[in-house]
Amino acid sequence: MTSTPPVTLDDVRDAAARLKGVAHRTPVLRSRTLDARVGAEVFLKCENLQRVGAFKFRGAYNAVSRLAPEQLAKGIASFSSGNHAQAVALAARELGSSAVIVMPEDTPRSKREAAEGYGAEIVTYDRYTGDRVAIGQALAAERGLALIPPYEHPHVIAGQGTAALELMEEVGELDLLLAPVGGGGLIAGSATAVKGLSEGIRVVGVEPEAGDDTKRSLAAGHRVTIPVPRTIADGQAAEIPGELTFSVNRRLVDDIALVSEDDIRKAMRFAFERLKTVVEPSGATALAAALAGRLDEVPPRIGIILSGGNIDARRFAELCGG
Amino acid sequence: MTSTPPVTLDDVRDAAARLKGVAHRTPVLRSRTLDARVGAEVFLKCENLQRVGAFKFRGAYNAVSRLAPEQLAKGIASFSSGNHAQAVALAARELGSSAVIVMPEDTPRSKREAAEGYGAEIVTYDRYTGDRVAIGQALAAERGLALIPPYEHPHVIAGQGTAALELMEEVGELDLLLAPVGGGGLIAGSATAVKGLSEGIRVVGVEPEAGDDTKRSLAAGHRVTIPVPRTIADGQAAEIPGELTFSVNRRLVDDIALVSEDDIRKAMRFAFERLKTVVEPSGATALAAALAGRLDEVPPRIGIILSGGNIDARRFAELCGG
Repeated sequence: MTSTPPVTLDDVRDAAARLKGVAHRTPVLRSRTLDARVGAEVFLKCENLQRVGAFKFRGAYNAVSRLAPEQLAKGIASFSSGNHAQAVALAARELGSSAVIVMPEDTPRSKREAAEGYGAEIVTYDRYTGDRVAIGQALAAERGLALIPPYEHPHVIAGQGTAALELMEEVGELDLLLAPVGGGGLIAGSATAVKGLSEGIRVVGVEPEAGDDTKRSLAAGHRVTIPVPRTIADGQAAEIPGELTFSVNRRLVDDIALVSEDDIRKAMRFAFERLKTVVEPSGATALAAALAGRLDEVPPRIGIILSGGNIDARRFAELCGG
Repeated sequence: MTSTPPVTLDDVRDAAARLKGVAHRTPVLRSRTLDARVGAEVFLKCENLQRVGAFKFRGAYNAVSRLAPEQLAKGIASFSSGNHAQAVALAARELGSSAVIVMPEDTPRSKREAAEGYGAEIVTYDRYTGDRVAIGQALAAERGLALIPPYEHPHVIAGQGTAALELMEEVGELDLLLAPVGGGGLIAGSATAVKGLSEGIRVVGVEPEAGDDTKRSLAAGHRVTIPVPRTIADGQAAEIPGELTFSVNRRLVDDIALVSEDDIRKAMRFAFERLKTVVEPSGATALAAALAGRLDEVPPRIGIILSGGNIDARRFAELCGG
């Protein structure tokens, strides 16, 4: 029995059309040093240079842009550990709406300030005890807001897939695509895009060792809950894959690679010293998997999504200065 | 009485032709946040993304590429506090030659290792007591090497001017160009290029407060020696302007702005957090002058050269992590 997938290549293409002239078409970075280290031609899609500093703007804008004018007038609610918050805030502002974001208390300062800078109202909760989905849903119901979650939404997933779409449009065929996995929206959208374009490509997601919920879930064949991950990759601290994203990922994702906290720090340092570019921990995990030899096979042409660059200098110094 | 200038716009154009396909045509970065902070349209020429991580590759390659085959077979000597060393090392390797570099003992680790990585031989000396020019000249004489100094050379100056040439080709007319001043090669080449292209443009060099030898020299009308500057901007620690570069700069540079050590650190942090790009202290001074309000006037369109990005994560953490 087959069913229609919740997101298709056409949905990603529709999202790309909506994002044209609004999101940045981010550059693809090459490095001879990196190629030599990995033993492959590596193409880095720089979503750390996307608006709001992360791929999240793609999905948020795509979803918000599809709301009816009356809903835009009422406003939007969301919940996020950081980058999706900024993304929804900016998308709301760009489309003449307003946003209320439910955010963990321990969110990095730079991410909170950035969301506020785009005009969002912030409501905080304790990440280790509160339920952000319930809080977000209650808030949306009370105030009549449209809830745009960080990944459990087909328009969000389709938007996230546009980065990988652009990458393949620019560099052509790839043997392997690596992308970080948090809730699973980026990898679901990316896999939808690249497997729609190319039959032979492998898609491997990357999780921090402490946050291996998707790896465990794929192995089990159903969604598995893990303890709240404590990892420097704060954008990948999911306890359980999304229901919608997992339904896509179990079909399209070939494997999950795991990286250690030290692998992540080394990849951030490599990006800083060799590529002169800033990636946050969650944004560096896919690069980390390639640099630290965490892949089962290293094919000739590898695309990697550097998914975000929102980290303040002080935090970078704590993580990578030693 | 007028005399032929040592470097002309045509020389810069010749250098650009030699560099085509060898040096990167580096990107020009824009930032809404930066424009708002400065109160102008600001165009950042990203020479931190140039090969070897600094504009220096342009001048070194231009100069080395003009040597006779017999000289290339004998080899090249140079002296440098860092980025010119890497630049000469790589230019030599690319052109089938070899390089010996005289380098201060306190050169940042990353710069020394990078030059060695390109196959250069390193000879060290004490920056506070030794005379690098004399050491370099003696070495060149002994071994029959061609000496390519970091700025006192018309082909080096012409090569450095190609970054500003590219910038104006890409963005059109500018009212003001800001570039860091160390020995004066970058600003001399840049001023030659942009004043050749546009009559109205102002050219302002930027020095760290402790290394204001060019500012003092322009005020005095002759080259003034200052004590060895102690500044985090290690690429701008010149005690006296070059003779050749000063002869160009006294004619073409309109003013020198000074920046504090704290201005430099703040600009590096701004580049990191807002632009997601890595600039070393010397590479950040021109941006620092604009961000810290060190300019006498702020015209509508400003070009800024981010001249280099060679700093290791540990040093960045020391400078910007607090």
